[in-house]
Amino acid sequence: MAVIARAAIVGGGVIGAGWIARLVENGIDVYVYDPDPDAIRKVEAVLENSRHAYAKLTNGPRHREGHIRFCETVSAAVSSAELIVESVPERLDLKRSVYAEIEAASGEDVLIASSTSGIMPSDLQSDMAHPERFLVAHPFNPVYLLPLVELVAGRATSPGSIELAREIYHSLGMHPLIVKKEIEAFIADRLLEAVWREALWLVKDGVATTQDVDDAVRYGFGLRWAQMGVFDTYRVAGGEPGMRHFLAQFGPCLKWPWTKLMDVPDLDDELVELIASQSDEQSGHLGIREMERIRDDNLIAILHGLRDNDWGAGRTLGEHEERLLELSKAPG
Amino acid sequence: MAVIARAAIVGGGVIGAGWIARLVENGIDVYVYDPDPDAIRKVEAVLENSRHAYAKLTNGPRHREGHIRFCETVSAAVSSAELIVESVPERLDLKRSVYAEIEAASGEDVLIASSTSGIMPSDLQSDMAHPERFLVAHPFNPVYLLPLVELVAGRATSPGSIELAREIYHSLGMHPLIVKKEIEAFIADRLLEAVWREALWLVKDGVATTQDVDDAVRYGFGLRWAQMGVFDTYRVAGGEPGMRHFLAQFGPCLKWPWTKLMDVPDLDDELVELIASQSDEQSGHLGIREMERIRDDNLIAILHGLRDNDWGAGRTLGEHEERLLELSKAPG
Repeated sequence: MAVIARAAIVGGGVIGAGWIARLVENGIDVYVYDPDPDAIRKVEAVLENSRHAYAKLTNGPRHREGHIRFCETVSAAVSSAELIVESVPERLDLKRSVYAEIEAASGEDVLIASSTSGIMPSDLQSDMAHPERFLVAHPFNPVYLLPLVELVAGRATSPGSIELAREIYHSLGMHPLIVKKEIEAFIADRLLEAVWREALWLVKDGVATTQDVDDAVRYGFGLRWAQMGVFDTYRVAGGEPGMRHFLAQFGPCLKWPWTKLMDVPDLDDELVELIASQSDEQSGHLGIREMERIRDDNLIAILHGLRDNDWGAGRTLGEHEERLLELSKAPG
Repeated sequence: MAVIARAAIVGGGVIGAGWIARLVENGIDVYVYDPDPDAIRKVEAVLENSRHAYAKLTNGPRHREGHIRFCETVSAAVSSAELIVESVPERLDLKRSVYAEIEAASGEDVLIASSTSGIMPSDLQSDMAHPERFLVAHPFNPVYLLPLVELVAGRATSPGSIELAREIYHSLGMHPLIVKKEIEAFIADRLLEAVWREALWLVKDGVATTQDVDDAVRYGFGLRWAQMGVFDTYRVAGGEPGMRHFLAQFGPCLKWPWTKLMDVPDLDDELVELIASQSDEQSGHLGIREMERIRDDNLIAILHGLRDNDWGAGRTLGEHEERLLELSKAPG
């Protein structure tokens, strides 16, 4: 069972809507505030995807969905929530002013979790009256299917808040990863940005098209990373002598003049146009909703596939798929 | 059917053995040269994995395996091969001297393909008598399951050699990716090295353990990358307004002081020890062969899962899985 019964979402964009979907699939009632007049339509489109995805997880009867209520004010959305999720645009001043509104209308010990993908929690919480119940809980798209959520404490965050957050997100079928030190962009996005920069160079220099880069990932290391991550992959690559051997063999390569990482490509109009037009050629035949649906079907298939092949206790994606399965079945 | 009937492998390490496995699963006879007295045992261990993996792909009768012969000299291995694969250690001088031995014993139009993961083909072929039939064909571990092979031409490589290579690797159930310009480390390894450097910093600075980094990948973007790649993922992230919108929104983040990419961490004894001991804690309970087997089972499950969810013509992993299925069934 979920640890909470009622949550508030402030900001119903792609990430906020993904949170709404995951929460209602867990039977949690969600109160939403978003000033965009188009927000309801956008949230409904995400919910349509998530319902389709969860239905694929099981042939049995579905769980009762939580209710969704769109509210006119932040205050109406958060006033009786047990968890308050902030998913507004990535501007420090905007987020701080939202926290002020939230604090004026909610209990002082209610958890407030920011979905920011890069701003440090200490910066976000610095003006708060009760910063100890604040943390970053950074999810990944599609939020209703991907298990990862990075939990990051700021200087004023209490250990109890992190522990409570861990319990809540675990109960939502997620994998809470507690980031050991506060840094900008946390863990996953730092890795992603590293790849992104290098990919920009490859396209800009005409070494590869966007399609080539995607194929290099999808037909190659992407298939490993859906199950193993970076270090375990190299552990295996080291063969029988293991990780120390691999580091001894691979280490010197770091000194080769291989990457352009020292340099940040200028994302000027020309490069934007090159990438966007290559991307159109690559995937313009599919609408975004269609791509989302295929992506979700593939994720379900991958999660199904991984369920039976464990890496050992506590390390399996299968357990999250089991949990998703559980969620998507009616209780009792 | 495979385009060739007989191949030579010079160098039977992890990659060479992976090539052997993929070739014999295609019914191709393979002649192997490796001076390591332990080579036969190591190759057999890889073949055991590949047989297990291909058996999982089908319940039907298996394809007739090609024969393997271990030879005493390079010359005996290559003399009647239709494709010569070089997988010796990554040293330019060693590779060049191997090519001299190969050229002395083989027909002048037989394709010679290096498995190097980083050296430029123009540098490798510069002393050859017939460099036009030389190219880089860079595979990914495990070679018998991962579809990607990067084909890279040097200055002296003929277009016909690239085309023939494309046909041969396609017939082996692979996805040949023709790299448009010769650069060191090609495409996939540049992306991988970018991630590797950033991951080293995260571990060195105590932000994350090796397990945390792997979990951030496995429970998050790794699940997307097994099917979508980098640019399509961001295309979807841009939502309905698409790729140009995403670039406009995300572009400025490049200027944030997020990564340490400008700086290469010193892989000193302390960092090696930190990574190796964390990796032992993470995965020391599994032997490397055991990890390989679980990895392969997961790859099979992922490939099975992706088969039914196409992105459109020519873009599906499913077709490679179909091809693997085909290979693993008896012909006729």
